[in-house]
Amino acid sequence: MDHEPATTSQVVGFLGPAGTFTEQALRLLHAGPEADCAWPAPSVAAALEAVRDGRLVTAVVPFENSVEGSVSATLDELIRGDRPLQIRRETHVEVQFALLARQEVPLGHIRRVATHPHAAAQTREWLAARVPDAEVIPESSTARAAELVAAEVYDAAVAAPLAAERHGLVTLATGIADRPGAVTRFVEVGRPGPPPAATGADTTTLVAFIRNNRPGALLELLEQFAARQVDLTRLESRPTGTALGQYCFTIEAVGHIDEPRVAEALAGLRRTCAEVRYLGSYPRADQRAEPVPEEAGPAAYRDAQEWVARLRGHV
Amino acid sequence: MDHEPATTSQVVGFLGPAGTFTEQALRLLHAGPEADCAWPAPSVAAALEAVRDGRLVTAVVPFENSVEGSVSATLDELIRGDRPLQIRRETHVEVQFALLARQEVPLGHIRRVATHPHAAAQTREWLAARVPDAEVIPESSTARAAELVAAEVYDAAVAAPLAAERHGLVTLATGIADRPGAVTRFVEVGRPGPPPAATGADTTTLVAFIRNNRPGALLELLEQFAARQVDLTRLESRPTGTALGQYCFTIEAVGHIDEPRVAEALAGLRRTCAEVRYLGSYPRADQRAEPVPEEAGPAAYRDAQEWVARLRGHV
Amino acid sequence: MDHEPATTSQVVGFLGPAGTFTEQALRLLHAGPEADCAWPAPSVAAALEAVRDGRLVTAVVPFENSVEGSVSATLDELIRGDRPLQIRRETHVEVQFALLARQEVPLGHIRRVATHPHAAAQTREWLAARVPDAEVIPESSTARAAELVAAEVYDAAVAAPLAAERHGLVTLATGIADRPGAVTRFVEVGRPGPPPAATGADTTTLVAFIRNNRPGALLELLEQFAARQVDLTRLESRPTGTALGQYCFTIEAVGHIDEPRVAEALAGLRRTCAEVRYLGSYPRADQRAEPVPEEAGPAAYRDAQEWVARLRGHV
Amino acid sequence: MDHEPATTSQVVGFLGPAGTFTEQALRLLHAGPEADCAWPAPSVAAALEAVRDGRLVTAVVPFENSVEGSVSATLDELIRGDRPLQIRRETHVEVQFALLARQEVPLGHIRRVATHPHAAAQTREWLAARVPDAEVIPESSTARAAELVAAEVYDAAVAAPLAAERHGLVTLATGIADRPGAVTRFVEVGRPGPPPAATGADTTTLVAFIRNNRPGALLELLEQFAARQVDLTRLESRPTGTALGQYCFTIEAVGHIDEPRVAEALAGLRRTCAEVRYLGSYPRADQRAEPVPEEAGPAAYRDAQEWVARLRGHV
Repeated sequence: MDHEPATTSQVVGFLGPAGTFTEQALRLLHAGPEADCAWPAPSVAAALEAVRDGRLVTAVVPFENSVEGSVSATLDELIRGDRPLQIRRETHVEVQFALLARQEVPLGHIRRVATHPHAAAQTREWLAARVPDAEVIPESSTARAAELVAAEVYDAAVAAPLAAERHGLVTLATGIADRPGAVTRFVEVGRPGPPPAATGADTTTLVAFIRNNRPGALLELLEQFAARQVDLTRLESRPTGTALGQYCFTIEAVGHIDEPRVAEALAGLRRTCAEVRYLGSYPRADQRAEPVPEEAGPAAYRDAQEWVARLRGHV
Repeated sequence: MDHEPATTSQVVGFLGPAGTFTEQALRLLHAGPEADCAWPAPSVAAALEAVRDGRLVTAVVPFENSVEGSVSATLDELIRGDRPLQIRRETHVEVQFALLARQEVPLGHIRRVATHPHAAAQTREWLAARVPDAEVIPESSTARAAELVAAEVYDAAVAAPLAAERHGLVTLATGIADRPGAVTRFVEVGRPGPPPAATGADTTTLVAFIRNNRPGALLELLEQFAARQVDLTRLESRPTGTALGQYCFTIEAVGHIDEPRVAEALAGLRRTCAEVRYLGSYPRADQRAEPVPEEAGPAAYRDAQEWVARLRGHV
Repeated sequence: MDHEPATTSQVVGFLGPAGTFTEQALRLLHAGPEADCAWPAPSVAAALEAVRDGRLVTAVVPFENSVEGSVSATLDELIRGDRPLQIRRETHVEVQFALLARQEVPLGHIRRVATHPHAAAQTREWLAARVPDAEVIPESSTARAAELVAAEVYDAAVAAPLAAERHGLVTLATGIADRPGAVTRFVEVGRPGPPPAATGADTTTLVAFIRNNRPGALLELLEQFAARQVDLTRLESRPTGTALGQYCFTIEAVGHIDEPRVAEALAGLRRTCAEVRYLGSYPRADQRAEPVPEEAGPAAYRDAQEWVARLRGHV
Repeated sequence: MDHEPATTSQVVGFLGPAGTFTEQALRLLHAGPEADCAWPAPSVAAALEAVRDGRLVTAVVPFENSVEGSVSATLDELIRGDRPLQIRRETHVEVQFALLARQEVPLGHIRRVATHPHAAAQTREWLAARVPDAEVIPESSTARAAELVAAEVYDAAVAAPLAAERHGLVTLATGIADRPGAVTRFVEVGRPGPPPAATGADTTTLVAFIRNNRPGALLELLEQFAARQVDLTRLESRPTGTALGQYCFTIEAVGHIDEPRVAEALAGLRRTCAEVRYLGSYPRADQRAEPVPEEAGPAAYRDAQEWVARLRGHV
């Protein structure tokens, strides 16, 4: 694994190594040759630092998993630091796990299974039922686990199906996740700039640090959205890292900053929160358009502003 | 009492007849000669109709009493009708009642006391204690009651102290209100136009008709103000006149429509309510300035709007 | 009109005089002979005082009109005073006004029309169109106005249709209300005691004095109902009579105090308000049953309480 | 590391191996000999399974870290599964990291540093500045990392200071956390039963699954606490594991289930949420008593219930 992008032809990065679900996400977002020469960064931090420094234009990193929740490393990189970044696109990848080994062996012969802790969590019941005596060893990625099986360090790996081919392993079992249908959401992150145009099916992502860490403050924050008829699709607390009980909130709202209702809600947060970090407005991966209530649409906003201007006597 | 303004020199009207608290309010608002030739309108409706028609520039009418509540006739005139009016000024008059008769008589000799029903309500306990056997007869105003005492129709009247002089009566007792300190608020009403300049101690008055007549809708209406840190000083429901259980709400808010927080709250109501009738922004009679929270001041609004514009890439 | 109930056979009173809509309401609630000997009280205060003193068992008084709103005299009697009363039943009467005179005369000959101010308000447009030159004189009741027409004091009266027969007058016009379909709601008030049994279509009426007179406090009050899924059918502010801007709230909720959700909401108000005055739980006049959400029904309450008791280890 | 408690004398377990912060927490909670023979469980799941099965009475596990947030493994074990558990005590341990090696070596000679991913996250900046060329390798615990340094697998480990003594290592540097003052909160978990007695400074922990996954539902959930004046100290969303965008909420509230306000809030959640899992009421580690508002104290609840009972006529 290289520790920085090698050449100027590498404009896109992703959380490496190759052969993980992140590479799969990258290829969904980049069909062309730039995917082939994309840089497999050694960590989320390294990928995003390269974007901040201008060595990469964008990087694809995991953001959220339907079983494990937020990917802390990504969220913390986006939340903290003094050089903000912005999400520009997203895609979903269905997570499927396979048990890989160097050759066909009875499951009873497996002593040591390596995998990433998130993958271990998602296959725990299957492993406990089928290889109850095997030790499960955490590795830094499912691809690295597969690599170490090929290197004869471990007997088997829980990894993405495509790791078999890449590392010359055989597949002992597929579809071994305890809950089929787990999905990971990946985002492509770039430097701040005007967002992609609104499509009618957009998400706006932001992080809000509330001023007083009390329940009333969270209610007030939610009211900033409710007063503008902006629905939330996600609200997740994160410790700010300063003390037990200090949180910030990752919020995802239906709509695009170019819509007046979203712009007004953002401005309301800016006024009333200690800090708001805008993380982008971008098309939904599922392209599902939520209907905008008539009283929250652009025409209703325009009419209301003209009415106030008339009352003020400014027109 | 004249049924319409007599001459073009009468530019101001008030709820007549002369000698009531409303005339006192008129003189607080108009020190000059226009008060002397003000038109004493026979009813609130007549006064406001003359303003609508342009026969008067403004009219002074009672709006709210600290004991009796809103003056329905005034509110209904402002709420209903297709030619809106606007409050331009307000003043407060302390209500003091006197018992007036043609000459000094023992209280025990009084058989019939005339007064306006509101005045009767505010002196009920005093009358029950001091003239328990007297019949209390409702008249259309306290001034008319005094006039009819002078005309020997009744033995005594409960009226404003200044009615004694005007009708040649003597004062048997003063300060006879059951609750001293009752105050009536009067407003001067004109045709719509740019409001008087903000003073830092202003009130904005409006009437909101909520879309669905359910408790949640009232909560949502209150949130439109709360989300902009606009405090309310008054919230009063009124039947809309269409059916039992159908209400509109008279709302008075701290601030002036030229403040962005008030403008945004009004625009929010305009979008989400069935109808909003703006009744004016004008200086408070008590000149009491409520401090504006920093996050709700003009600078916070400007900063937030510039921030959103930057994020949108429009600057 | 008698100033107190004459005999012990008079157990029911009503706001007199006879021949008004209140008598009509009384006869809807009391079909039997007790209606015939009911006491026509000279005022709402007198009627309710007789109930407080035990001279009457109950009294029927007007409570709310779909055009004019609350009947202040009734509300204030129920709100104030140190001997509480309770509403035990309600009924609705459609308000129809007639123009009555001593004999058939052309409308153009009518100079002075007497009526109660509420009736004047509800027929204002009709009178302005048909008898534009007539003076409208306020009297203490529509029945008294009719009586004074019979006594030749006035030319005509706006009154309830049944006043014609009672006072030997002729009907010049009927159905003269500006807004047909106006309804007045009457309540039968008694001394405190266990409420009538729940019917599934009940109303609970109360008055709440909030602790701090700020908009947040009203929001909190509404939350006490919302947290228990209790809908409100009516919320009306009233000045407390102490100063401008001090209000209490008359609240009517769907449900009966014997339902746990209503009981818990009432207890929540009792804890958080400065004062709560319970004015009764009683069947709705329209018998309309609102469905109770499953999570707010008695079974859900019982289950939840048993669950907490188990967790506490008390069972 | 043993895979199950060895003898009946082992009544307490903890997340092993020995020599971690969890052992430190165990010793804060258990001063006596039961700590010396406590079972170091190989995983949080194994520790809690042994409690469920009755092989252990309680187990001490990490719950929350001021930098990393919730410990997913613990939360998920408490949230999921059909045999609920309960938190009985908590303690806080300040997290201090040391860099350990087999002998004194210049930092520049270190090539491979092992540690647990959480520890890597909390010392990232220090490692990047002082050993920028070293590879950081994830291990399943900081104690295991130290053990593997002793076994000459790695050059150095980031671990708890007490691991040096236990594994015969030397301390190259101490206090290497990027943010000093990080604290981990540990809980002692047992089977369900009556909670420890209220102390006046208690926490109640629970998990709520809201019925409809919409922002309004979260607002309603917060209102269940607000309506009873119960403050929250922690609100953390967790994916339910079923689909992207499906959350449950871990909630920590001020107070004890034996307080009526907490009991009523819990009952309210039970009625209105899809599911509520109660995770215990227990003394706060910091013993800080939050004052209970008068209207939310036991006397206010008792008074309110007696009042309602009187109104119902049941007393």
